[in-house]
Amino acid sequence: MTDVLDHGSVTLVDFMGGDSRVDQAAGVSLGRFDRQREEDKQRKIIKYMMKHRHGTPFEHSVFTFHVKTPIYVAREWMRHRIGSYNEISARYTEIESQHYNPKPLRGQSGENRQGSVELESSDEHDAIRAAIRRNQDGAFALYHQLLDSGIAREIARGVLPQSTYTEFVWTVNARSLMNFISLRMTLDAQYEIRVYAEALYDIFMETMPLTAEAFTMEGYKAP
Amino acid sequence: MTDVLDHGSVTLVDFMGGDSRVDQAAGVSLGRFDRQREEDKQRKIIKYMMKHRHGTPFEHSVFTFHVKTPIYVAREWMRHRIGSYNEISARYTEIESQHYNPKPLRGQSGENRQGSVELESSDEHDAIRAAIRRNQDGAFALYHQLLDSGIAREIARGVLPQSTYTEFVWTVNARSLMNFISLRMTLDAQYEIRVYAEALYDIFMETMPLTAEAFTMEGYKAP
Amino acid sequence: MTDVLDHGSVTLVDFMGGDSRVDQAAGVSLGRFDRQREEDKQRKIIKYMMKHRHGTPFEHSVFTFHVKTPIYVAREWMRHRIGSYNEISARYTEIESQHYNPKPLRGQSGENRQGSVELESSDEHDAIRAAIRRNQDGAFALYHQLLDSGIAREIARGVLPQSTYTEFVWTVNARSLMNFISLRMTLDAQYEIRVYAEALYDIFMETMPLTAEAFTMEGYKAP
Amino acid sequence: MTDVLDHGSVTLVDFMGGDSRVDQAAGVSLGRFDRQREEDKQRKIIKYMMKHRHGTPFEHSVFTFHVKTPIYVAREWMRHRIGSYNEISARYTEIESQHYNPKPLRGQSGENRQGSVELESSDEHDAIRAAIRRNQDGAFALYHQLLDSGIAREIARGVLPQSTYTEFVWTVNARSLMNFISLRMTLDAQYEIRVYAEALYDIFMETMPLTAEAFTMEGYKAP
Repeated sequence: MTDVLDHGSVTLVDFMGGDSRVDQAAGVSLGRFDRQREEDKQRKIIKYMMKHRHGTPFEHSVFTFHVKTPIYVAREWMRHRIGSYNEISARYTEIESQHYNPKPLRGQSGENRQGSVELESSDEHDAIRAAIRRNQDGAFALYHQLLDSGIAREIARGVLPQSTYTEFVWTVNARSLMNFISLRMTLDAQYEIRVYAEALYDIFMETMPLTAEAFTMEGYKAP
Repeated sequence: MTDVLDHGSVTLVDFMGGDSRVDQAAGVSLGRFDRQREEDKQRKIIKYMMKHRHGTPFEHSVFTFHVKTPIYVAREWMRHRIGSYNEISARYTEIESQHYNPKPLRGQSGENRQGSVELESSDEHDAIRAAIRRNQDGAFALYHQLLDSGIAREIARGVLPQSTYTEFVWTVNARSLMNFISLRMTLDAQYEIRVYAEALYDIFMETMPLTAEAFTMEGYKAP
Repeated sequence: MTDVLDHGSVTLVDFMGGDSRVDQAAGVSLGRFDRQREEDKQRKIIKYMMKHRHGTPFEHSVFTFHVKTPIYVAREWMRHRIGSYNEISARYTEIESQHYNPKPLRGQSGENRQGSVELESSDEHDAIRAAIRRNQDGAFALYHQLLDSGIAREIARGVLPQSTYTEFVWTVNARSLMNFISLRMTLDAQYEIRVYAEALYDIFMETMPLTAEAFTMEGYKAP
Repeated sequence: MTDVLDHGSVTLVDFMGGDSRVDQAAGVSLGRFDRQREEDKQRKIIKYMMKHRHGTPFEHSVFTFHVKTPIYVAREWMRHRIGSYNEISARYTEIESQHYNPKPLRGQSGENRQGSVELESSDEHDAIRAAIRRNQDGAFALYHQLLDSGIAREIARGVLPQSTYTEFVWTVNARSLMNFISLRMTLDAQYEIRVYAEALYDIFMETMPLTAEAFTMEGYKAP
C-alpha cells in the first residue's frame, strides 16, 4: 500500500501478464505466442512496439488496484473509460468522516487558467485550513443528524463536501494505465491526482520494468 | 429543454439516425443498406432485433444531450462508459451557487438497503431542508472566501457539497441510451437519477418511436 | 488445451480474479473490499449480482486465451469489442496450410434464413468434401507460387480461403466472456463458433464455478 | 460515393456535429456550451485541443459511412473497437462474386517484414493476375455448386477467398476516425487500407475543415 495525500492510498491487489507477455503477444504476429525469450530481446521488441504505437500487445497485462481518494479526484479518475470500477456506495452504506485538507495551500495561477501555484506558508493559511476543517466537520455533523432523523442515506450524502474520501477497486490494462499516467502525471494535471499517478507509475515500474522503461524513454506517451 | 428536479434539465442538442436507420443497418446483413421501407416493415424488424438481442443496428442512431444535474447524480451517470462526456470544469471556471434541495424528503427504506421511502410532510422537514440550505450557503460563502484569498479554484471546490449542480454534454448511441434507461428508470434506481431517465425516455420516444415501442414491449431490456 | 473442430483449439493462458474477487468487488460498495468470506456467502451475493444485472463486479476477473480457429469464425469473434486481441499477421509471416473442412456437412435450413440443418451422410458428401479440399490445396499452391514469384505476402494472402486457420491471443474479462458465451453458445449461433463457446464455457466453469453456476441458472444471460 | 480499389467504395451516409460542436464541447468546461463563435476562435481552440491531446470534445461529431472493401481489409478495419459495425452476413445471404485483383502487383519488401514494394510491370504479372482471377472464379463456381447441393451458406462461404468484397456500415466519432486515419494512412499501413484511409481523410476535410487542418498540422496524430 502506498500512502497518498493525507488519508488516501493506492494498493496493488492483483496483476496478470508482464513484460514477457508483451513479448509473447507481439510474437503471435509471427505465430509464436509460446515463445520465451531472454530479457534483451524482450526489451528490444517492447521499445519497438512503444515507439511505433503498437498498443495492443500491452493490453494483455492487467492490474487491479484498490484506491482511496477524495471525491473530486475520483471524478477525474473515472472519466477514464477503458477500465473497470466498483466504488463504495453512499446509498448502501454510511460514509466515514474522512476528508482531504490540502497542505500547503496552493494559489490560483495567473498564467494558466486551470493551474495553481505554491504559496508561502502564512498564518492566514492556518486560518483557512481551519475553516476548511470546520466546513467538513459541520457537513458530517449535519449528515449524521439527517441519518438520525431517518432521512435516506442516498439524499443525506448531498451535504458532504467533495473533499470527502471515497474508495474503489479499479481493473485496468497496461495500455490504459499508461494513458492514465501520461495524462495525469504531467504538470498540467492537478497536484491531487498527479500524486496518485506517480504512485501508480512506481508500481508500474516495479511490475513491468521493461515496459515502463520504454514508456519513459518515449516521453510518457502511451502507445 | 425538459426541467428536472429544482434546477436541473435535459436538452436534446442533436440527433442522427432514427428508426429507418435501424432498418437500414439491419438490412446491410442482406446487402441492402440503401433500402427504404414503410413503417410496418420497420416496426417488424425492429421488434425482431430487440427481442433477439441484436444490438448493433441501434448503435448508428446517436444523440447529443446537454444535462444539468447534481454532482452525485452525475457521478452515477458517468459510470456509463459507452458514451462521450464533456463537463464544466471547476479548475477552469468558478462554479455557480446552485444546489439541489430534495422536496419532499425521503426516508431510509427498512427493507432495501439502498432504497428510500416517502415520508409524511412535517414541520421537522422544513427545519431539515433549511439546514440543508444553510449547509449549501455556508459552503458557497467559504468557497468565495477562499477564491478571494487567492486560493486555487481546483482546491477551493473541495468545500462544495455534492448537491451542487454541474453540467455536461453527453453523446450516446441509442443502444447505450437504452441501457442507461433500462438501469436508471427502474424503482431500484435513486429517484434523483430516475427522473432524468424518464426525461430521456420521453425524448427517446419522440425521436425513435418504433424503437422505443419495441424497447418498452420487451420490458425496457436493452438489446 | 481443448481441441475444437479439425485443427482448432482453445487454451487458457492466464487468469486473474475468481469468485472471491467478485465477492470482494461487490463488497467495496460497503467499504469492505478486503473481506474474505466462505463459499456460501459468495454464492449468495454472486447470484444476487447476476440476477439484478450488476455486471461490474465480474469485470475484475480476467482471462487470457490462445485461440486457433478458421478465419470466418475469427471474423465473428472479433466483433466482440470489449476485449483485447493480437492475431497472427499474414503481412509479417507466411500462413501455414491448415484449413477447416466441415464434417458432417450441414444443409441450409428452410425455416431459419441464417441456420443450418444436419444432413444424412452420403457419397455425394465425400465428393463435396474432396472438392473443398481441392479448393484449399489449390489456393495454397497458388499462395506459394505467388510468394516464390516475389509477390508481397500482404497481397498473396488474398487467394487463401476463409476456411484457413488463424490464431490469436484474447484477453477478456468475465462479464464480456459471459456476453460472448451468451450470444455464441445458443442454437442460433453457427455451429463452428458454438463449439468454441462451449469450450470456453467449460474453462469458465472450472475457473469461476460459483459465477458460472449463477450464469447458468439465469439462463446464460450476461449481467 | 468515393470509388476505392477495383470494386470498392466509401460513402458518407450521415454526419452530426462539426467544427462548431468541438468549440461548444470545449466551451462546456467554462459552462458555455451554447456559445456560437466565429471561425477564427473556433480554429484557435481546436488547434489547442489537438495539440494538448484533449480528445473528448471531438467525440461529439459522429460519422456514418457505408464501406465496400475486400475481406482482408475489413479484417484490419474491424480491429478498431471504438465504433459501430453492421456487415453483410454470409449466413443470411448469398455473397456476390466480386473480388479484388491487385494492379499493379507489389513485391515483398526486403527491408520491412510487413511491407511491399512496387514492381516493374511484366508479362509474368499478367499471368499472375490471371491465376488470381482463376482462383476467384474457381472458388465462386464451387461456392455455387455447394449452394446448389443444399449445403448451408454459413459453411459454403468457407471456400471464398479473402479477396472477396464485403460491405458494412460504420458509425464512428471524429476522435476515433482520426485514430483510424493516423494508423492507416501512413506508409507502414498496407496499400489496400491506406487508400480507404485517404478517402476517409478527404471526406473528413470537407466535413470538419478546421479539425482536419489542426490534425494535419499535428502530423496526423490523433488527440
